[in-house]
Amino acid sequence: MSAARVSCIGPTGVKLPGRGMCELQGFGRVAGAIDAKRDGVKPQDRGEHALTRMMELVAEDLAACNRLIVERMHSQVALIPQLAAHIVAAGGKRLRPLLTLAASKLCGYSGQRHVALAACVEFIHTATLLHDDVVDESALRRGQASANALFGNKASVLVGDFLFARAFQLMIEDKSLEVLRILAAASATLAEGEVLQLITQNDLSSTEAQYLEVIEGKTASLFAAATRIGAVVADRPRAEAEALDAYGHNLGISFQLVDDALDYSAEQARLGKTVGDDFREGKITLPVLLAFHAGDATEQAFWKRTLEEGEQGDDDLAEAQRLLASHDGITRTIDRAELYGEAAIRALDIFPMSEAKLALIDVVRFCIERAR
Amino acid sequence: MSAARVSCIGPTGVKLPGRGMCELQGFGRVAGAIDAKRDGVKPQDRGEHALTRMMELVAEDLAACNRLIVERMHSQVALIPQLAAHIVAAGGKRLRPLLTLAASKLCGYSGQRHVALAACVEFIHTATLLHDDVVDESALRRGQASANALFGNKASVLVGDFLFARAFQLMIEDKSLEVLRILAAASATLAEGEVLQLITQNDLSSTEAQYLEVIEGKTASLFAAATRIGAVVADRPRAEAEALDAYGHNLGISFQLVDDALDYSAEQARLGKTVGDDFREGKITLPVLLAFHAGDATEQAFWKRTLEEGEQGDDDLAEAQRLLASHDGITRTIDRAELYGEAAIRALDIFPMSEAKLALIDVVRFCIERAR
Repeated sequence: MSAARVSCIGPTGVKLPGRGMCELQGFGRVAGAIDAKRDGVKPQDRGEHALTRMMELVAEDLAACNRLIVERMHSQVALIPQLAAHIVAAGGKRLRPLLTLAASKLCGYSGQRHVALAACVEFIHTATLLHDDVVDESALRRGQASANALFGNKASVLVGDFLFARAFQLMIEDKSLEVLRILAAASATLAEGEVLQLITQNDLSSTEAQYLEVIEGKTASLFAAATRIGAVVADRPRAEAEALDAYGHNLGISFQLVDDALDYSAEQARLGKTVGDDFREGKITLPVLLAFHAGDATEQAFWKRTLEEGEQGDDDLAEAQRLLASHDGITRTIDRAELYGEAAIRALDIFPMSEAKLALIDVVRFCIERAR
Repeated sequence: MSAARVSCIGPTGVKLPGRGMCELQGFGRVAGAIDAKRDGVKPQDRGEHALTRMMELVAEDLAACNRLIVERMHSQVALIPQLAAHIVAAGGKRLRPLLTLAASKLCGYSGQRHVALAACVEFIHTATLLHDDVVDESALRRGQASANALFGNKASVLVGDFLFARAFQLMIEDKSLEVLRILAAASATLAEGEVLQLITQNDLSSTEAQYLEVIEGKTASLFAAATRIGAVVADRPRAEAEALDAYGHNLGISFQLVDDALDYSAEQARLGKTVGDDFREGKITLPVLLAFHAGDATEQAFWKRTLEEGEQGDDDLAEAQRLLASHDGITRTIDRAELYGEAAIRALDIFPMSEAKLALIDVVRFCIERAR
């Protein structure tokens, strides 16, 4: 099975952009275990710090990337670096640039291009985060305007635009039209995914296929571009570029599925982390779709009131968590995340074992083990 | 005097991005008359339809550009072309793509690259318009939420992002790193200008120099890129690229000055056109700065209440117009626009007379005569 086919774990008939129709494999029907693919990974390595290996492996490159990010988000307009620093430096995991750096290492690349391109990937991601912050009118109506009402929306939008333009300037300095094509296409697909999410928001008639399309767009597209670039800078054969694309794509889906599960996790709430954002925004994620379709009339009425009509009381999040638990909405979502994780690891089959490969496998564990 | 110097009509000491310091020429001190530069323009051509010559000159290219715009704003996510069409097809003048097409003709270009690049320029402009539409919290507080409250802000931001990414995809297809550099730099400068505008909004202590920096960023940068591209696709010498850059830059400033004057024009109001948007948003434009600094304590208190504190009553726009008239705020703004218009025309000096040159000169007239 080629790497490109491995990536096709969609609902029957769902078109995975750029990967053709997956007519044979249903959403969640892939067999096989992650363990079988972890050749050479020692059990004691499967700890909580699954990102450590990757951080150590590319520590120097990551430091260079971080320096470049700070340097290139500079502008004579002071609000730009101020606002950008707030989000860029806010202790993010730098997961996407890490992937570019590790994928380049996997491909044996020994130059410096990957550092700037990893920074581009982070800039695009940061621009997206800033634009995600934009509060729409309906949210405002529910009294959720952010405290920084003076600049708020506008500043988020405009600084995001600046970072996006800056990302392209940085890419152009790299002078590779292929890299430009990959990241521009990912940016367009990312925006499409975000728009589709907006359309399906507050709409419980949206389907699992649409949900998958949303997360493929808003998350998997940039993950896939971030890893594919590793093969491109190293000038490796097309099969390796496609394998890394499939790895990033499946990892991105897995990552987003876990994120969407965690948003309802009682354990996360216990740890003091924010939960319920998706619920408050009326996002129709997989856990909700699973519980909604398995629910009786009373339960469906609950979901319609809270997510479609946006009428939410103080106890509604707890009730949503109870309903999700009773229908295994979280567990089943994480099960799917595992399947995508397996596919991500399997996509790396064509690469011989190496520290970089182990690090990329660990990232899959990191994504999934957040949910355990 | 080189073309690059011609473009430097800033307040003393203002840094014009990419053009060095203009230490000798003050804001509005350039002598010379537009008429002296209009060699070969027949008096009867100086009518109201100053864009006609350009529209006719590049009619075929413009039609091809419009077809490409419609074709490339397509997405499987239906909201994207719907929303984009609303703004792209809303009868805009297509001034920026027209400039790219005419500048290419001026340089004797006979290929087809300029058509796609003109479409890129329009996509970038459209993305900016969509992001400008984002309603900030204060606008909402004054009860000005748009009717499409369900999608509103978020959709404008995300569809803008899509168009911006699409613009880059289209540029990359052109395969010229130089064109990419020009348009990416213009996009970054544009965003910086917009952020600076946001910072200086509601702040009457902002200066004429800052105002100039804002309009250079938000308007002149894309005009300059749009025209410069003409020389690049035609592979003309650097001096011609810089001349076209200077033309676009000065034209852009002239255009924005007139726009800012028209926003307070009683004549525009009489014609049923919208006026007072800048006033309501507390934008600190040149007409206001001129009237504010020339005003007495009572007048300054009026501007502070209405623009800094945002306290506006029904009669305040009329009062603002009265104050502007009493200090010649509109007239003096348009006088400056004329000076920049002259500089734009003078920048074309290195090109021999041609239909394309006449058309570009006409555009300057179009920009300024809107205000008469």
